[in-house]
Amino acid sequence: MLRRLILLTALLALTTLPLLAEPADILITGGTVVTMAGPNIEHGSVAIRNGEIVAVGPSSDIDAKFEAKTVIRAGGMAVVPGFVNTHTHVPMTLFRGIADDRDLMDWLTNFIFPAEAKNVDRDFVKWGTRLAAAEMIRSGTTTFCDMYYYESDIARETKAAGLRGVLGETLIDFPAPDNKTWDAVIAYMRGFVRDWKGDRLITPAFAPHAPYTVSTEHLRQIRSLATELGAPILIHVSETKNELQQVAEKHNGMTPGAYLDSIGFLGDDVVAAHGVWLTPDEIKTFAAKKVGVAHCPESNMMLASGVAPVVDMIHAGVELGLGTDGPAGSNNNLDMVEEMASAARLQKVSRGDPKAISARELLRLATIGGATALGLAGKIGTLERGKRADVVVIDLQQAKTQPVYSVESAIVYAASGSSVVTTICDGKLLMRRGQVLTVDEKAAIAKAKEYRDKVLASLKK
Amino acid sequence: MLRRLILLTALLALTTLPLLAEPADILITGGTVVTMAGPNIEHGSVAIRNGEIVAVGPSSDIDAKFEAKTVIRAGGMAVVPGFVNTHTHVPMTLFRGIADDRDLMDWLTNFIFPAEAKNVDRDFVKWGTRLAAAEMIRSGTTTFCDMYYYESDIARETKAAGLRGVLGETLIDFPAPDNKTWDAVIAYMRGFVRDWKGDRLITPAFAPHAPYTVSTEHLRQIRSLATELGAPILIHVSETKNELQQVAEKHNGMTPGAYLDSIGFLGDDVVAAHGVWLTPDEIKTFAAKKVGVAHCPESNMMLASGVAPVVDMIHAGVELGLGTDGPAGSNNNLDMVEEMASAARLQKVSRGDPKAISARELLRLATIGGATALGLAGKIGTLERGKRADVVVIDLQQAKTQPVYSVESAIVYAASGSSVVTTICDGKLLMRRGQVLTVDEKAAIAKAKEYRDKVLASLKK
Repeated sequence: MLRRLILLTALLALTTLPLLAEPADILITGGTVVTMAGPNIEHGSVAIRNGEIVAVGPSSDIDAKFEAKTVIRAGGMAVVPGFVNTHTHVPMTLFRGIADDRDLMDWLTNFIFPAEAKNVDRDFVKWGTRLAAAEMIRSGTTTFCDMYYYESDIARETKAAGLRGVLGETLIDFPAPDNKTWDAVIAYMRGFVRDWKGDRLITPAFAPHAPYTVSTEHLRQIRSLATELGAPILIHVSETKNELQQVAEKHNGMTPGAYLDSIGFLGDDVVAAHGVWLTPDEIKTFAAKKVGVAHCPESNMMLASGVAPVVDMIHAGVELGLGTDGPAGSNNNLDMVEEMASAARLQKVSRGDPKAISARELLRLATIGGATALGLAGKIGTLERGKRADVVVIDLQQAKTQPVYSVESAIVYAASGSSVVTTICDGKLLMRRGQVLTVDEKAAIAKAKEYRDKVLASLKK
Repeated sequence: MLRRLILLTALLALTTLPLLAEPADILITGGTVVTMAGPNIEHGSVAIRNGEIVAVGPSSDIDAKFEAKTVIRAGGMAVVPGFVNTHTHVPMTLFRGIADDRDLMDWLTNFIFPAEAKNVDRDFVKWGTRLAAAEMIRSGTTTFCDMYYYESDIARETKAAGLRGVLGETLIDFPAPDNKTWDAVIAYMRGFVRDWKGDRLITPAFAPHAPYTVSTEHLRQIRSLATELGAPILIHVSETKNELQQVAEKHNGMTPGAYLDSIGFLGDDVVAAHGVWLTPDEIKTFAAKKVGVAHCPESNMMLASGVAPVVDMIHAGVELGLGTDGPAGSNNNLDMVEEMASAARLQKVSRGDPKAISARELLRLATIGGATALGLAGKIGTLERGKRADVVVIDLQQAKTQPVYSVESAIVYAASGSSVVTTICDGKLLMRRGQVLTVDEKAAIAKAKEYRDKVLASLKK
């Protein structure tokens, strides 16, 4: 009798197992899971429900526990946190390659400024953002940090594409394409922050252009308003030697970071793009005040801005991320995989040390490093239970990435953005098996061609 | 009557037009043809017959003149000369990423040398070459210049894959995996050159490793034998500061290039890899003696070797090409498109000048520049009537490459090797619409995985 009861209970347990399995929206199984929160998991799984990661671990532990609507088989692939591009100007995709290989001032005054004045409007940023979204989804970026105009329109497009964005409306002491006066942009900012604050994907931000293009008074005003509204601040800092000279002339010989500190501007809600010429003292200050820094090696190389003290910043504990910068003359793509390789190689050669930085460290900068710099480390940047499900699957089964002795090396030094096959942001599939699902890519490409002709014609006038 | 006759003649001419059309094997039509021998041709065509280019020009002129067996529509694509990788070690693909981010000597003595001693045999180079061939075909390389062991086996695999190779058997004053003594490698060389000389695709070559690893006596012997047999010489020259020190100590303070010149080694049949530390005098000598130089920026960065004086070499008229170097710890891929971007960015940042070099110049180095360095400028490197048909089609209709303001910029700064869709070498299709036709890619990838396990096990012994 007892035996029978035991048998019955066992049978019952077996038959009800599927009923006990938790539901999941997506289960990624059988890949090398690079969690960035601990050791890699070979033959690992990630389970996703309601936009969040509900389990990460060996497939043998995880898979039986979940009944998933969508199962993604990732054998021979790397499963990594979505890349975080900490500095770009996405609508400038429509100016991609318009005037390369030129001096910064020639590029700006003869091409970019007139092209922007004559072409940038709501329609332009809409299509530029769509084109950039397709490119970012294809190359595994799930979060980007933008500085441009009409940023509320960029927010709408970003959300529609299913991407995460820290989106900064540019504030500058010149008439901008959208806001012609300072009062207008301040009013715009209040509306922009009100409309988007608390959104699951979008973080509205202030983007004062740079210490040399925005007055001290205006920088103080932004600082105070940002605190009042609880919105982060994005700003170009210490990008070129020319900037250092301009800031020194205006502000008693101070360097840009020291100047910003002197006016009480710095804080953990500030993200400084570039930081090429940060001094050891500024690096200490940035680390102490938890200022995020967006390192953009390909832009710094292409515009000959210089080599950022990346290794020193890492040692000092600066919250450092990677960025592509805009794709118009300073890169010209939004590929974070390529950016990791460039960052590594540039540090190695400039420091004369092949051990200067590792592939693993680059992956850290491109994921949790960037997330931390943007103040999003609690939500994204690693593959851990409870985090938002921003997950990318990279195919390493290609001739160019085989064999794989180290998954980090294969991703950083051998793969490229085009090795990404699946992109998930906030638990939603944005690309599967190389098919972009949330952006009408064909329409965006067709529009890009139209804009090319329009922009070229506008420059001839 | 006369009128009627004219009409009749005209009608006859029209109806017989197809009969008068010349036959062609392949017609590529409607692309932007970057001939590298003059201005680009928008809506251009390239006609190919018997391995050669028989016509290049506007599609409206060319297309009606040819009746082609295969027509490749290249609307929205760039049609460029196949890339020439002037320095690599293709079988080392099987060691890809085995030990990155290390000191050169640690990498060599603790990983590469033991891994080579324990694993490199004819089977290894066969599969390594196949894997590399697939990767090169996928990224648009049609000619490569190799230095390794068992180079006759590499030649066989290269020819089977349909690629063009200048293939140098390594000569070094240590026992090599294939030839254990100097006499053995000299005997091997006589056979290797005899077997392959005059082949349409393969150029057998001598590859003395470097001025510090081969004695003066042996270098002189190679120089004389190479002249006797009419085979080019490939050699690493001036790659690292350590090499400079070693050569200076042995040879009265001379630099490697000056030393090679002093022993009568240099000539127009010599290809020097790297040339990172060439002095202004050496640059003059190399230009005067038409020594080819293979610039490998990603390797020089990754191994922290230094920044080659590329702009100075170009100004001096040095025959300069681009190379990826081997994919084991010094790159780690064979992507010439990425290499062009890295080369441009490195020159710009190291010279502090965004105008230092242009996308067009990089395309020149990667095609006719490399062909000239390898002594093949008469046969390949441009798209011109009479040249061998080494042609690559690059898809620029992707989100990441749109819009296209400049085709050179789009290729160099926005595309990647994976943008290549069609690869033709010597008039033969090696890849079409992303499908590799001449290498069993799946088998090569499966073998790469087997070798990975074998190599790892061998290092544990």
